[in-house]
This record gives sequence, structure tokens and C-alpha cells, in this order.
Amino acid sequence: MTTNPPIPAPAAVHPLAQFAAQLQWQQVPAAVQRRTEDLWVDWFGSVLAGCRARPVASITRFARSQGPDSGPSELIGHAGASTSPMMAALANAAASHVAEQDDVHNGSVFHPAAVVFPPALAVAQSIGASGAQLMAACVAGYEVGIRVGEFLGRSHYRIFHTTATAGTLAAAAAVGRLLELTPAQMQHAFGSAGTQSAGLWEFLRTAADSKQLHTAHAAAAGLMAAYLARDGFTGAQDIFTGPQGLAAGMSQDADPARLTDGLGTRWATAETSFKWHASCRHTHPAADALLQVMQAHGLRPQDLAQVTCRVHQGALDVLGPVVAPATVHQSKFSMGTVLALAARHGHAGLTEFDAEFLSPETVALREKVRMVLDDEVDAAYPRRWIGKVEVRTTDGRTLAGRVDEPKGDPGNTLSREEITAKALRLAEYGGAVPAPQAEAAVQRLWQVAQWPRVPALLPG
Amino acid sequence: MTTNPPIPAPAAVHPLAQFAAQLQWQQVPAAVQRRTEDLWVDWFGSVLAGCRARPVASITRFARSQGPDSGPSELIGHAGASTSPMMAALANAAASHVAEQDDVHNGSVFHPAAVVFPPALAVAQSIGASGAQLMAACVAGYEVGIRVGEFLGRSHYRIFHTTATAGTLAAAAAVGRLLELTPAQMQHAFGSAGTQSAGLWEFLRTAADSKQLHTAHAAAAGLMAAYLARDGFTGAQDIFTGPQGLAAGMSQDADPARLTDGLGTRWATAETSFKWHASCRHTHPAADALLQVMQAHGLRPQDLAQVTCRVHQGALDVLGPVVAPATVHQSKFSMGTVLALAARHGHAGLTEFDAEFLSPETVALREKVRMVLDDEVDAAYPRRWIGKVEVRTTDGRTLAGRVDEPKGDPGNTLSREEITAKALRLAEYGGAVPAPQAEAAVQRLWQVAQWPRVPALLPG
Repeated sequence: MTTNPPIPAPAAVHPLAQFAAQLQWQQVPAAVQRRTEDLWVDWFGSVLAGCRARPVASITRFARSQGPDSGPSELIGHAGASTSPMMAALANAAASHVAEQDDVHNGSVFHPAAVVFPPALAVAQSIGASGAQLMAACVAGYEVGIRVGEFLGRSHYRIFHTTATAGTLAAAAAVGRLLELTPAQMQHAFGSAGTQSAGLWEFLRTAADSKQLHTAHAAAAGLMAAYLARDGFTGAQDIFTGPQGLAAGMSQDADPARLTDGLGTRWATAETSFKWHASCRHTHPAADALLQVMQAHGLRPQDLAQVTCRVHQGALDVLGPVVAPATVHQSKFSMGTVLALAARHGHAGLTEFDAEFLSPETVALREKVRMVLDDEVDAAYPRRWIGKVEVRTTDGRTLAGRVDEPKGDPGNTLSREEITAKALRLAEYGGAVPAPQAEAAVQRLWQVAQWPRVPALLPG
Repeated sequence: MTTNPPIPAPAAVHPLAQFAAQLQWQQVPAAVQRRTEDLWVDWFGSVLAGCRARPVASITRFARSQGPDSGPSELIGHAGASTSPMMAALANAAASHVAEQDDVHNGSVFHPAAVVFPPALAVAQSIGASGAQLMAACVAGYEVGIRVGEFLGRSHYRIFHTTATAGTLAAAAAVGRLLELTPAQMQHAFGSAGTQSAGLWEFLRTAADSKQLHTAHAAAAGLMAAYLARDGFTGAQDIFTGPQGLAAGMSQDADPARLTDGLGTRWATAETSFKWHASCRHTHPAADALLQVMQAHGLRPQDLAQVTCRVHQGALDVLGPVVAPATVHQSKFSMGTVLALAARHGHAGLTEFDAEFLSPETVALREKVRMVLDDEVDAAYPRRWIGKVEVRTTDGRTLAGRVDEPKGDPGNTLSREEITAKALRLAEYGGAVPAPQAEAAVQRLWQVAQWPRVPALLPG
């Protein structure tokens, strides 16, 4: 058998690995701690909304068939069922993203909750971590994943689903922190995670189920990377910027400075936005801008003759191919459908999509919506997601709508009451848990930082 | 919960998906059947050589901790231990590649055995498939993986480990065939596999363990893709050539014609080479050319003053960064080390690497070896791996060595006796199984096509 000599020590531990390995909950400023709790409760609603969706059910069945019948980690929304950490992470991460209601970090175009909370929770339950340890690990996951997404840049996002790719690193950071990896081990975990980074946008073209596979894969692969690192398994030392690393293979505009931007002083976690509409985030600025102009001028849906959304290039890349959505999920990437639902209902929510995404009224309005590239919006993106629309009315007026921060962004955030209400709406929509049980769970979740030991979120 | 309308039918099933879904063992020409059995026995030796190696042990521990304590699928070399198909695939695939003795397809620079046999075996044991069904599935895996590797091209291989990336598709094809996916389901499995394709060469620079993670990941992710497809989970319809698919994201010179090249008439499986030296395949042509010139002129190691290897660009890319190997594994990517061992022992085998890779004699000879790009060798690559060396002797002569097919290539293949002997040498080297048990197992393995039901290869 192969007996290798000791592995050579790395020249230096990357500051991002150092940071992730050493982050303590007490170091996190109180406002960021509170925002992390907000994101945690908001995520729980998304899992409950998605845990019975068809693609999620497939992944969950697979996870249960390959893992033990029961284990330390909860399968959320499955009546107290449990399994191993990896399999729970696989299933719960798949559930987190399907309702398109989970959080998003604008600058990185990255959805942290879906790939951070599920693996961290599964491992925390397995090792008996405290709530504060869990939360610190999740902040590490957010800070790492967001910076990796920013580093990979816009060229990466044109082809790759950043939540899947950077998500693998985010999951490794969160799990690695819970497993108390040393900084050097964390660097190995990053190497093992990055070399599993994957996720292509191609699936959108035919409304395929891959988005759920992407979060599941990122959570499970990142978790595996962290466990392996704890066991002495080594990874590339410079997976980010090495000549055969992530940037070399999957980006044309990677910016290494973003990996360490403001580490420990700039809290990217707190820059994360909540989703108000149940659709791709690229549609939200225009939807809010349309609502703004309709409200300002007292317009009804039938007054709209044409709506021109002035958008950034990323919106054209992701939403452009979706011209005639065939499924509910695909319609969440149709700018026309989202604006039609927002115009008709004041909000494009989960129930509106299910009931109305293909109704004649929605389709008629959808066909009046078009997108054009806007230089100001594009230049501000991805740091700011400005919404601009031009509306031509049936009586011949041309009106402009604008929002500088869509609802849910840090400067226009949700209150804890709104977050609780959103989570419970999502839980009801998912139908996996009776309302009183969901309500009790959400109330407990707000206390996470005080938990001496992370319990099942929904005791069976 | 989300209830989607029926998924739109794809415009057309890709011929590669059609082929993989419908391949029967009886369709495979007898000579290709025999070669497939050769590859199967050859693979078994590699698993036994690697199953106790340190990085493999880490992955195996992880797999066992996340899967059930026992299950339908064998953990090869672990005293009858078993688990779920995914976890067995993870562990056995990790074991297959570490000794660098598993097979290789030259044209695609792809190691099929490591990513095809482990997931196929695990699933065959789980569903009670026959040996002929297992072999047909493995041929499907080889034919698909090799063509995907050829399609992704040389630009892909410069950054990505093709065995990891194309391997995910190969594993999906093999498992999908065993699960009797329809052609349309196979196409979905390809989509789900391709969107998990990952594996960067960056790890080589610091001799990290990622290669074992790559085969493990490919086997497990491809297996998952196939199971999900059987359950109705959909994937991108054009994961290969779509505008946000594999070629768009991970290749600059992809050639779609290679995906279907000679499907059903050209058997890529039979083009696969056996490895004779225990090192990266890129070193073999030069090693054999050096042995040729040493034999022709009666040279001893001490007669060598300088050896110039005339190589293809891919060899420079992969081997170039390895100047002073620090581990046994890294030394298998050091042209100088491989040639030094071959010159001194007539063969660079596993035991030679372990005992001698850093001995003063090896290091002294290693430092006399250099590589230069050769136009003829580069133009022939990857279809032909020509070996050319120029030797300057200590008495001032300049001599040329050349081989047109390194030992183990289809035109210079191993006999069944040599394959058996190699497998048993590898089993002995691995030390996981007593010699009589390994010998009995290898004898049984030759009969695979007659098995009514695939049993444990090493009954506990």
C-alpha cells in the first residue's frame, strides 16, 4: 500500500481560510447577528415551502435510499424522519431553493441560505453544537460564499449557476467551522470543495429540475470536503487563483481582491436581501418599479399597453431565453409573467404563480413586456439592482417607474414581523406541516443563538 | 406545493443517449466483449492495490459514516463490508485510481475503469443484475465517457481532469443502462450528470489528494443522476453543446462530431490501453522509448548523461509543474523519476516507486531528464502516443529511442496471463486480501459474462 511521506506545509494559509476557521459568534457585530437570525428564519420558510415539490421529493427519496434509515440529522418536513448529515444536507438543500423565495446577495448573485443552512444544520445536529456555534458557522459560510461569488465575477455567472459553484465553498466553510478545522485544514477543505464546484445554466432552456440538484450537490460536496479535511485529506492550496484552479477554468474576469475584501470588517452576510416576489431575483427591480409607477399614476393592469424593462446584461442572459414558459418554475424566470402577476395582484407570490402563470390574462399582459439593456442599471450591477421601467398606457401616455432598492434589499428590508409572516405563508403553501407546529417552530427559531444544543427544528 | 404541468418532450433524443439506453451485450462484437472482460479484471487489481491507501481510507471512512452499516453493495477489500450503492461507488471509485495502474483511453485522455466499474458494480449488486447486463452497462459507460472526453478536447484537459468531468457522464450512462432508463430518461441523466461535472488539475501542484476525490465524485454524482432520471427528475436537454452547457463553460475546442463518432460500429472500449508502468500515462511513451534505446545499445543507468524526452504539449502541461516530487503520488507525475526507475529496474512499478522515488540514485538520474515539445509527437497526440527520447551517453554518443505504441496499447496489448499476473501483483501490493482469496476472485472475474447474478467479488 502507498505510504506517503508527510505532505509539505503550504506556503501560507489563505486569509479567507484563516477567517473561516477562526470566526466566533461573539466577534460578529450585534446588528449582523440579528440579520443572520433573520436570514435563518427566512430560510426555514423556504424549506417548508419546497420540501414536497416534485423534484425535491425525487432527491429526498434518493437520499433516503442511500443513507441510513435514521440518524442524527433531520429531514425537514418529513414527520420526524432523520438520516446521516450528508443525506439530510442533500435533501434539505434541494428543498431550500425550489420556491425561489430564499435570500440572495446582490453583488455576488448568490443565494447563500440554500447552500449554507442545510449542511450546517445537519452537522450541528450530528455533533451536538450549540446554536451560537451553528450561527457562527453559517456566517462563515455566507462570508466565504459571497466573496467567492464576487471573485468569480460576471463572466462566470453567464454560464455557471454561482449558487451551485460558490455554494460548494460556502458549504465547506460552514461545515468546516462546525468541525473546528484548523486554518490549514480549512484551506484543504476549500481545495476539495472547489474541485467539485459545478452547475451549468443550460437546464433553464428546457425548464429542467437541475436547480434543486445544484443546491443539493453544493451542500453535500462541500460537507464532504470539510469532513475529509478533518481526516487529513488534502486539497489544492490555491484552488481560487492557481493556474489550473477555479478562475482559470471557469471565469474570464475573476478578481482575487474580492476574496478578502474587508474580511472581518465588511459583513457581507448583512448585505443579503430577502426575496419578496416568488421569482428570480433579476425580475424584482423591474416588478417593483412597475408597481411604483402604477401606484403613482393610479394605473390598472388594463391600462398597460407596453412595459419596457430597462435592465442589466445579467438579466438578459438569464431571463432572455425564457420566452414562453411551460412550467411554474420556468415562469419565475419570465420577466413578462412576473410583471403581469405583480400588476394584477400587487405581488408575485407562490400562490399567484401556481394559479395564474398561464391564464389568458397573464399571458396577454406578459406579451406586452420587453427588456432592453440600460447603461446606468448595468453599470450599477451587481452592487446595486436598480429597477427602471417605461410604461406606455392605452391612452397614449409614456410614464417612467423607478426603484433604487427593491423590497427586501438591506436598505428596504423586511421587519421581523414580515419575516415571520412570510415564513408561515411559505409553510402553509408547502403543506408539509400543520400551521400550529410551523408557528411554534418559527418562534423557537428566533432564539437560535441561545440554544445550548441544536435540536430537531420540527420534533417528530 | 408546486405542481408543475407535464414537462415538454424534448425535440429529439441525442443519439448518444439512445445508444447508451439500448445497448445489449449481444450487440457487442466478440473481440470487444473479450477486451471488456480484460479491462474488468485489470480494474479489479487497481481497486485492491488502492483500497487501503491513506486518501482512499479517508473517503471510505466518510462513505461508511454517511451510509447504512450494511447494504446490497460491496466495499471491496474491506472484509465483506457493504453499504448502499452510492456509498460503495464513492469508496470503490476512490480506490481505483490511486495506484495509477488503471486503464486509459489515449484519444480522450480518460481513465474509464475507475469511474465506470465501481458505480456499475454497486448498482448491479443492488438490483440483482446478471453479469452480461453489468458488462453491457460498462461498455455503455466506456463508449459515452470516451466520446465526451474526445468532445471536450485538449483545451478542456489543460485545466480539467477529464476522468472527473467526462467520468460523471460515463457513470451516469453505465448506471442508467442497468436501471433500464428509456432513451429520454438517459438524456435527462446526462443533463443531471453534466451539470455536476467537476475536477480541476490544480491539486497536482501541491501533491494533494484530489484525484481520488475526483473519481469518487464522478461515480457518485453520475449514479445519482441516473437514479434521479428513473424517478422522473429532468435535466438539461443539450448539456453538451447548449449555449450554457459543458462545452460553453469548460472547453474552447469542443467538437460535437466526436460525441457520436462511429456509434455502434467503432468500439472505443477496445481502444483502451492497459497501464504497464505505475505512473501517469503521459510518462509511458518516453519510458518505453528509453528502455528501447537502452536495450538496443546495451546501456546501463550509469551510461546516461542526459535524456531528452520529445513529448506532446499535454505532457508538458501535466508533468511540467512537477519538478521536485515530494510524495510517491506526485513522483508518478515526474518524468525524471519515472525514467530513472525504468532505467534502473526495467519497469517503473508500484514497489519501485515506494522504495526508490527519493533515493539518491533516482534523484541523480531524475535530474538528467528534461522534456521538449516535439512537433510529430504533438501532432499525433492524442490519437497516438509516440515515445521519442534522445540520449547523450557519458562516453559522448547521442542515441535516439522510439516506440510507436507503448506497452499496453491496443496494438501492443497485454495477454490474459499478463493481466492476471498484474492484477495479482497489485492485490499483493495493496495487502487487503490474502493471495489465495485474490487469486480465486480473479479466476471467477474472468467468467463475469456467464454470471446469472452479480455476487460479491470477495465474499466476506
